[in-house]
Amino acid sequence: MITGSTRLFGIVADPIAQVRTPEVLNAYFDKQGLDAVLVPLHIGAAQLAVAFDVFRALKNLGGFIVTVPHKTAAVDLCDEVSAAAREIGAVNTVRREPDGRLVGDMFDGRGFVAGLKAEGLDPAGRRALLVGAGGAAAAIAFALAEVGVGRLTIANRTRARAEELASRVSRFYPAIQVEAGDADPTSHDLIVNSTSLGMKTGDAMPFDTELLQPEQIVAEIIMKPEMTAMLRQATLRGCVVQAGRHMLDHQARLMGEFMTRVS
Amino acid sequence: MITGSTRLFGIVADPIAQVRTPEVLNAYFDKQGLDAVLVPLHIGAAQLAVAFDVFRALKNLGGFIVTVPHKTAAVDLCDEVSAAAREIGAVNTVRREPDGRLVGDMFDGRGFVAGLKAEGLDPAGRRALLVGAGGAAAAIAFALAEVGVGRLTIANRTRARAEELASRVSRFYPAIQVEAGDADPTSHDLIVNSTSLGMKTGDAMPFDTELLQPEQIVAEIIMKPEMTAMLRQATLRGCVVQAGRHMLDHQARLMGEFMTRVS
Repeated sequence: MITGSTRLFGIVADPIAQVRTPEVLNAYFDKQGLDAVLVPLHIGAAQLAVAFDVFRALKNLGGFIVTVPHKTAAVDLCDEVSAAAREIGAVNTVRREPDGRLVGDMFDGRGFVAGLKAEGLDPAGRRALLVGAGGAAAAIAFALAEVGVGRLTIANRTRARAEELASRVSRFYPAIQVEAGDADPTSHDLIVNSTSLGMKTGDAMPFDTELLQPEQIVAEIIMKPEMTAMLRQATLRGCVVQAGRHMLDHQARLMGEFMTRVS
Repeated sequence: MITGSTRLFGIVADPIAQVRTPEVLNAYFDKQGLDAVLVPLHIGAAQLAVAFDVFRALKNLGGFIVTVPHKTAAVDLCDEVSAAAREIGAVNTVRREPDGRLVGDMFDGRGFVAGLKAEGLDPAGRRALLVGAGGAAAAIAFALAEVGVGRLTIANRTRARAEELASRVSRFYPAIQVEAGDADPTSHDLIVNSTSLGMKTGDAMPFDTELLQPEQIVAEIIMKPEMTAMLRQATLRGCVVQAGRHMLDHQARLMGEFMTRVS
């Protein structure tokens, strides 16, 4: 039941109809017993800066989720951004402080890591291969480093992008060995596909699944289909597999906690 | 269940916690089977113009209610305003057209009139006494004139304000006899209190209730208490009484219809 004192949250996106955040976050608020509601806010890129001004002024706004295509632009529109989000170059969650300041952070990668941990697959100390070097890969690379991954190899078709991401992570986490490398799962404990390969039937494998060994952990961020061809191959080869939905579930909780936290 | 394709509506107010519109309008949307949700938007006067710009840009916004203290300012912030709302000098409901244009109208007085009609007390042709000449009185005066009240007397402590309102209504509805007069119910079929007298215990009566006659219709716009001292006196004197809540119920339906109408 929404009343005049219900705290307001939003998800800012363009397009908007496909977002699943309202269902997931409103279920989170219910579970926490919070008098809060999250609604879709369909805003184009050209109006994003003005919208942020109104979000500062909107006194009953608790915060908002930011998604495609606004995650990069949101970094500079916030009044404060976590060091990690600034390094990643993207913000996906903003909390509005009581004085109107907008504080941004990034939970895409942390949601992925929390999903692994919840399944007893803590990346800490493990040798990880991350395939892809785009926005999702950056978020996951920083989140893996944040929880103390043992070693991180980043593989990307355009090698320069992998090298660039590896050096950004290295600079931020100098104690961790991060380097660009080949998409070869050999000698890795955890293999993560952060490319979009596997969304469409007929897509190439993101790496050579013939090289997978039993007991390796193989994780996916693709939500649909839940079992990609790569995950099916990994299962056949005796790997421990983790589907993309775990990332979404845990990310929602982390975003909800961040937005409703009183700083 | 709010999803990414749920149509968004709001109520803009400052303060916000006391508004009842979310409960009433969300019940209306449910009843109509609309995938729509209305949420509180707590915005101060200084930010109202910027907020209207964002409302134009917010592609999934269907419209919004405007209440204290923004009703007057909203007139000039809309792209289009009904002639009646412009005359009244207040907008309480805004529809967002698909192209982003904001179209304002005023339903405070019409809700009051619809409430009377629903109880079989159509003001058409009746001699009405309106006590008060503020914002609520203006809305009611124009709405009574709109449905063809027989004659309208406006009584106000500061007589000049009653005269000013009477001349505005006359100018807009030249066929109807409208004049400033005393707060004397004699020779009137319908007596309306649009002042705030009756909200607090110990308030003076808005007019001399000793002069009321049986069969006169006596209406109130005060919501709390539901039965004001004036309505109690009117009941004792055999009048037909109408409490303030009828206005709210019918206003909600009219506002909901206006915001969800495809123009």
